Amino acid sequence: MKEIVLRQMKERGITIEGIVEIVFDLQKPYHPSLNKENCREAVNAVLDKREVQHAILTGLALDIMAEKDLLPQPILQIIKEDESLYGIDEILAIAITNIYGTIGITSFGYLDKMKIGLIGKLDSRKGSVNTFADDIVAAIASAAAAKIAHSLKGGSES
Amino acid sequence: MKEIVLRQMKERGITIEGIVEIVFDLQKPYHPSLNKENCREAVNAVLDKREVQHAILTGLALDIMAEKDLLPQPILQIIKEDESLYGIDEILAIAITNIYGTIGITSFGYLDKMKIGLIGKLDSRKGSVNTFADDIVAAIASAAAAKIAHSLKGGSES
Amino acid sequence: MKEIVLRQMKERGITIEGIVEIVFDLQKPYHPSLNKENCREAVNAVLDKREVQHAILTGLALDIMAEKDLLPQPILQIIKEDESLYGIDEILAIAITNIYGTIGITSFGYLDKMKIGLIGKLDSRKGSVNTFADDIVAAIASAAAAKIAHSLKGGSES
Amino acid sequence: MKEIVLRQMKERGITIEGIVEIVFDLQKPYHPSLNKENCREAVNAVLDKREVQHAILTGLALDIMAEKDLLPQPILQIIKEDESLYGIDEILAIAITNIYGTIGITSFGYLDKMKIGLIGKLDSRKGSVNTFADDIVAAIASAAAAKIAHSLKGGSES
Repeated sequence: MKEIVLRQMKERGITIEGIVEIVFDLQKPYHPSLNKENCREAVNAVLDKREVQHAILTGLALDIMAEKDLLPQPILQIIKEDESLYGIDEILAIAITNIYGTIGITSFGYLDKMKIGLIGKLDSRKGSVNTFADDIVAAIASAAAAKIAHSLKGGSES
Repeated sequence: MKEIVLRQMKERGITIEGIVEIVFDLQKPYHPSLNKENCREAVNAVLDKREVQHAILTGLALDIMAEKDLLPQPILQIIKEDESLYGIDEILAIAITNIYGTIGITSFGYLDKMKIGLIGKLDSRKGSVNTFADDIVAAIASAAAAKIAHSLKGGSES
Repeated sequence: MKEIVLRQMKERGITIEGIVEIVFDLQKPYHPSLNKENCREAVNAVLDKREVQHAILTGLALDIMAEKDLLPQPILQIIKEDESLYGIDEILAIAITNIYGTIGITSFGYLDKMKIGLIGKLDSRKGSVNTFADDIVAAIASAAAAKIAHSLKGGSES
Repeated sequence: MKEIVLRQMKERGITIEGIVEIVFDLQKPYHPSLNKENCREAVNAVLDKREVQHAILTGLALDIMAEKDLLPQPILQIIKEDESLYGIDEILAIAITNIYGTIGITSFGYLDKMKIGLIGKLDSRKGSVNTFADDIVAAIASAAAAKIAHSLKGGSES
């Protein structure tokens, strides 16, 4: 299943390396000894979780269906225009973030607002619908950052 | 917008009256003077909320896309089979339930497990995909029940 | 840390065995080969999680402070009377339930409404404040049930 | 009840004006015609909600109990030190933020990370425990900003 999720992510312009960069920039100030390999492991652990996979597949399917004009109206237009009051993209993202506890919510909000790295690239890609994709990237990065914070502290995650 | 939401719900077999019955059965034991008109008003107030409308439209669109085999695999099969570990249907439902505060979560869980009234009918309809529809009904009923509990207590809702 | 959490739970009348009974009754119909040892392992895994421990310690502290009349008013009275519209007990519980994904929410709502086993005993204990304790038990049991559902299905949890 | 909540907030250094400043700075870029009176109305509407009041009273009670060394260990130390992995302060905050839908989560995360205005002041106040207070301020401001976004768009809130 994870293979399929990774392939669908890649087809939508989402790479593990792009997410690793965000996690590294986010957590480096708090953990000076952190390296990208630690971040890659954390991102991979997040992507192993079944509910994360389901949220990703669902969000990307909605982006794809919207891009192909296959969704019924008015939800088609709401998703295509990434309407700021839509809210459902954030809801799926929070389901991902929660996997390692609530502390990931703060990073998610920050990343979603600042559109750092890959998140900003997805958000501004012309001709392509990335209403869910950018929030999914921010959410995976936040969950991975939470996992790192928990494991560097010692003890069981979340 | 609400008109469109109500029409799409009806096309999927979801009527306001079906939801009103559930709310009435749920809250009657706690509020003996409750009548169906109170329940109808509460259900209508829930359906006035923008984020509720977005959650309903998104969930029903996923059911429809799955029924028409338009979604990519493997999410198509997961949604068609209403796989018990999918989880995203509950996530959308909780976004609806939260509109009047967390107390609605208890009713939602109870209704989702007991499959009362319209919820059970949707859950067992052959040939039709209602993976999101049954949770949406349970969530609207729970939010309406929470609204009634708050307003009968007096003071501001939630 | 877990030792301390277990001791504080016990002092408030919450035993692992009491929670195991609830999980077993909840999941047995779906997994005929399930035994109590599987349930005990799942409950222990839930109690290993840091955010679960924090939610338990915070909830029990509020119960204890309320029982000793140490909280300021009006929150003292709201917690002592287990006011049905309080909502914060459910909020802490959901943080526990979410640890293995959203599917635990349904069991939580059901257990919270039906007051099964230890949950009902805590809810009706005279002279003792268990506003948070009963929801905490329902939440731990629901999270453990979700963990069992995920692991019997195979693949990674949640 | 609202009077009591406002008085307890003030005693902990939280004023409506301090929150209004944050909301204004947050939303002004998106709504050039916004004035502080609009923000004050939105903050007041958030504070009218029962579940918001309960979350505030509970969080402030925990700060006060911790400041007076009345909580049992180890939760006393965790709250006094505002341990970054605690998580329960964010959980209470999200319950506030959700009142006007999920879109408030992004602002909450941003404010919680950037410690803008009153939030930063509370976070760094010596001798006083403000583990919950700063998140409560960020959450009220985010909920008010979400309310403004919904009402300026027209139609029903959230």
